[in-house]
Amino acid sequence: MHTVPLKLVTIVAEPVLEEQLTALLHRLGARGHTVTDSRGAGSRGMRASDPPGGGVRIEVVVGPDVADRILAHVAEHYFPTYAVIAFVSIVEVVRGEKYV
Amino acid sequence: MHTVPLKLVTIVAEPVLEEQLTALLHRLGARGHTVTDSRGAGSRGMRASDPPGGGVRIEVVVGPDVADRILAHVAEHYFPTYAVIAFVSIVEVVRGEKYV
Amino acid sequence: MHTVPLKLVTIVAEPVLEEQLTALLHRLGARGHTVTDSRGAGSRGMRASDPPGGGVRIEVVVGPDVADRILAHVAEHYFPTYAVIAFVSIVEVVRGEKYV
Repeated sequence: MHTVPLKLVTIVAEPVLEEQLTALLHRLGARGHTVTDSRGAGSRGMRASDPPGGGVRIEVVVGPDVADRILAHVAEHYFPTYAVIAFVSIVEVVRGEKYV
Repeated sequence: MHTVPLKLVTIVAEPVLEEQLTALLHRLGARGHTVTDSRGAGSRGMRASDPPGGGVRIEVVVGPDVADRILAHVAEHYFPTYAVIAFVSIVEVVRGEKYV
Repeated sequence: MHTVPLKLVTIVAEPVLEEQLTALLHRLGARGHTVTDSRGAGSRGMRASDPPGGGVRIEVVVGPDVADRILAHVAEHYFPTYAVIAFVSIVEVVRGEKYV
């Protein structure tokens, strides 16, 4: 099976940020996104004493440049203020041109 | 910790396909699956004008041959007709013989 | 974008184990966790004849030593008795010092 490597960017954030973050991801170049509801505790920026709370887990499959732009934007504009985490992994996809 | 590398295949699709896809995954060699409900927009095959909609995110941990078979089948039989995305990453597991 | 490689550990288990497992993950060194509700079948330890059931999908981003400790503990104490699966992948994060 011929596949191409792309980046899977996962962002976990407060539910109130879902609309803003998905709009941002598309503006930075994502062609689609998947959101699942989550809960958790201790995310970056939360105090250890915070109670576990609801969250959203947002995923996009994008090219490496878009992944970099997303990480840079989220680190600069969200990490200082919000309980947001973001991580990137390599995924293989079929027909990669659909994602970039 | 001794681990072995396997493949994590993630498929995001319309909820109506859940039963059909999980049955397919088992038929192609998966020994288990995990499904989470999701929502999203802009997935492969969707028009950009489509409203965000509910989805299911299906995961299986399998050997490389099964992963290839799944990707090939999904690309041939689902990509032309459905808003389905599929991606594969490498994961390390303990006691890998349970998955293949 | 400067990133550092860490480990994403994903554990899928019966819902009754959520509190116990998240407490364990923090005790073993995780600084945060994300839980999503799932459903599935055929997980490690389940009999093929078991009906699909609800589950929880727990994720932590941790350093390699903590990831090893988690896998070892889960394999020793949970695999023999419970329908638990665990897998680890490499993720890139910004400001990795927050996770370890």
